Amino acid sequence: MADNYTFKKSMALFDRAAKVMPGGIYGHESPAILVPGRYPYYVAKAQGSHFWDVDGNKYIDWMCAYGPILLGYGNQEIEKAVQKQRKKAICTSMPADMMVDLAEAMVETVDGMDWAVFAKNGNDATTWAIRVAREHTGRKKILKAKGGYHGVHAWCSAHGGVIDEDHAHIHNFEFNDVESIKYYIDKYPGQIAGIISSPYHHPTFADSQDPHPAFWSRVRDLCDKEGIILIVDDVRAGFRLNIHGSHAHYGFTPDLVCFSKALGHGYPISSCTGREFLRPAAGNVFFTGSFWYNADAYAAALAGLEIMKRDNSIEYMNKIGNMLKDGLYKAAADWGLKIRMSGPPSIPYMIFDNENDFRRMQLFCGECSEHGVFLHPHHNWFVSTAHTEEDVAYTLDVAHQAFKVVKDTFGG
Amino acid sequence: MADNYTFKKSMALFDRAAKVMPGGIYGHESPAILVPGRYPYYVAKAQGSHFWDVDGNKYIDWMCAYGPILLGYGNQEIEKAVQKQRKKAICTSMPADMMVDLAEAMVETVDGMDWAVFAKNGNDATTWAIRVAREHTGRKKILKAKGGYHGVHAWCSAHGGVIDEDHAHIHNFEFNDVESIKYYIDKYPGQIAGIISSPYHHPTFADSQDPHPAFWSRVRDLCDKEGIILIVDDVRAGFRLNIHGSHAHYGFTPDLVCFSKALGHGYPISSCTGREFLRPAAGNVFFTGSFWYNADAYAAALAGLEIMKRDNSIEYMNKIGNMLKDGLYKAAADWGLKIRMSGPPSIPYMIFDNENDFRRMQLFCGECSEHGVFLHPHHNWFVSTAHTEEDVAYTLDVAHQAFKVVKDTFGG
Repeated sequence: MADNYTFKKSMALFDRAAKVMPGGIYGHESPAILVPGRYPYYVAKAQGSHFWDVDGNKYIDWMCAYGPILLGYGNQEIEKAVQKQRKKAICTSMPADMMVDLAEAMVETVDGMDWAVFAKNGNDATTWAIRVAREHTGRKKILKAKGGYHGVHAWCSAHGGVIDEDHAHIHNFEFNDVESIKYYIDKYPGQIAGIISSPYHHPTFADSQDPHPAFWSRVRDLCDKEGIILIVDDVRAGFRLNIHGSHAHYGFTPDLVCFSKALGHGYPISSCTGREFLRPAAGNVFFTGSFWYNADAYAAALAGLEIMKRDNSIEYMNKIGNMLKDGLYKAAADWGLKIRMSGPPSIPYMIFDNENDFRRMQLFCGECSEHGVFLHPHHNWFVSTAHTEEDVAYTLDVAHQAFKVVKDTFGG
Repeated sequence: MADNYTFKKSMALFDRAAKVMPGGIYGHESPAILVPGRYPYYVAKAQGSHFWDVDGNKYIDWMCAYGPILLGYGNQEIEKAVQKQRKKAICTSMPADMMVDLAEAMVETVDGMDWAVFAKNGNDATTWAIRVAREHTGRKKILKAKGGYHGVHAWCSAHGGVIDEDHAHIHNFEFNDVESIKYYIDKYPGQIAGIISSPYHHPTFADSQDPHPAFWSRVRDLCDKEGIILIVDDVRAGFRLNIHGSHAHYGFTPDLVCFSKALGHGYPISSCTGREFLRPAAGNVFFTGSFWYNADAYAAALAGLEIMKRDNSIEYMNKIGNMLKDGLYKAAADWGLKIRMSGPPSIPYMIFDNENDFRRMQLFCGECSEHGVFLHPHHNWFVSTAHTEEDVAYTLDVAHQAFKVVKDTFGG
């Protein structure tokens, strides 16, 4: 088992960073909200299921860059496809022809969708989607699931510099509670433009929730009845539940579906796909950015769709994810600890049953980190096809020891 | 001179695209708003100052992908730096160490700025900047120059799905008119959080305007007096006027400066740099995205800063831009046509003096396109260091003939 991990170079680099960047590292990769002092800070190299930090420490990476890496770091087929396109053109004054190929592939791949547009960030797509809903309906109000994450734009974020007007027509329903949606429909009759939600609920700092069996069909019925646009934010879960979109996994058809992360296999791309009746509204909401036509990301996405279909990636990730989940339950139980694992096998979320402040999770993840396993204390993890049964076995060995430390420290 | 350009494959591909994308091509690269039928639609290859469309037509490209390409397509030094980093890591679970190097380089390069953050789109940076201004001041209102472009987000766009609340606290002053700024300061005392503007005014569909000699110093004084955050959107002009930021060219120091486009040389990146006193507010406004820590773009940006400094790229682009400008004036005059060229030499904007509907510009650009010169009918153009004196000479030959067609068609 890997041991003697130190973070001297990480810390020195972070000290430099703190001088020239607010907080040293900002955003979701900020160590201040993770496991300070026992965690990798900067990546020097990544390959397959592993990365190495600047101190030379090696980790099995169960975060996969927070989702984009579904086929492993440096996947040779993806790199080859990107390299081929790079020799032709990347960022150009008109789009590369491959944009059309990719749009066709998206329409063919994603259940029930008739067109696609591409951007860079997941948030580009989710924000544009609510504007398409507003454009089509002429209504203002958007319902989102409480705790749901759709990006950092002011309408879906509460973190700094937000003004009342940003949230004036955003209302939070409870995921899985159709009555909480009806409440707003009754309160604001004819005023709801759209409902946006992830396909299953994956709030940060809390258990993931599968949709109840009838939830989505009831929401779909409500939207049809009330003329509300149903938007699925599949940025996080897309291509890890069902290659045809997570809505196919749960058996319903939204009006707009947003993708990013695993669509590009590390290359920046997002997409919004939509149904035919929304094409005019979609054409009316101006959507553009300097790098949105970059062909390297199109090449990666196109190759990725083919590889994921050919290899049945989801079946494999489910197998690995289930091995990890079952093993963690068992390893915790060996020390009399109770944990909860929620979410799909390919996107697991773990927490201690008696945890309410994440101190156990931070200790657990710190122990794992110092022995070569990278896990996140309060965000779901991600499985890739590069993770092997040996990676799971190694992870479980490390986790077993880490659970012991949690037991010794907290007593249970 | 190149001739016999046809667009058969372009049209066939566009027909396919129209089935699977709203409008076939959306956003700023939509041919519907450019020169339909006589214009390249899709890029097959790009190298140096040229690109080839899917019909095999070759063009001298004076748009440079709308700005990002400052060192030419496929610049070997940039590609080498990117390739080196790609072999290590691109998109990872923690940032690459190169993020720190780039932040240090930005702080060293950009006049008066103490920290930097990175994102993907220019609009990521401009929207975040106004939130930092709101966070710091606790005020709501933002003044922007009328006609100024800061991206497609609802606060700075009027194109589809925008609701009143998006613009409730956004007010438009007239660029170069300090009184129009004072008007809002008097009307909303103590309520203005920030003023955002490009360093010189480059509205689409209109002449560029240099700032009057005293404009920025007077705006700076007003901001200091009123506690207003001064934000420069240098996304379009950055690194084409002054390597230290366009504010250095005009001799003033803003509080926040946003970059993108030429920062990444085709690789997706944007940045907001800021002054020390804004560091706490910057740390409070959560800013993140799946691909914001991608190291290939950091590598491109870092290499690019070094190359641009070493080669004094701006001096060369000014020379080429001035040759182009002088030559176009002369070529138009040969047919008795009057044109206006505005903006800096490296970012020229051309229009016919007696034009009010862009039909002359569309004809002119269509003629140029069919003879191998790619120009835009209503958006400024961009010069790169890959453009040669031969490119200018060729362009002027083509333009000369195109002016004749304008003369023959419109009589003047």
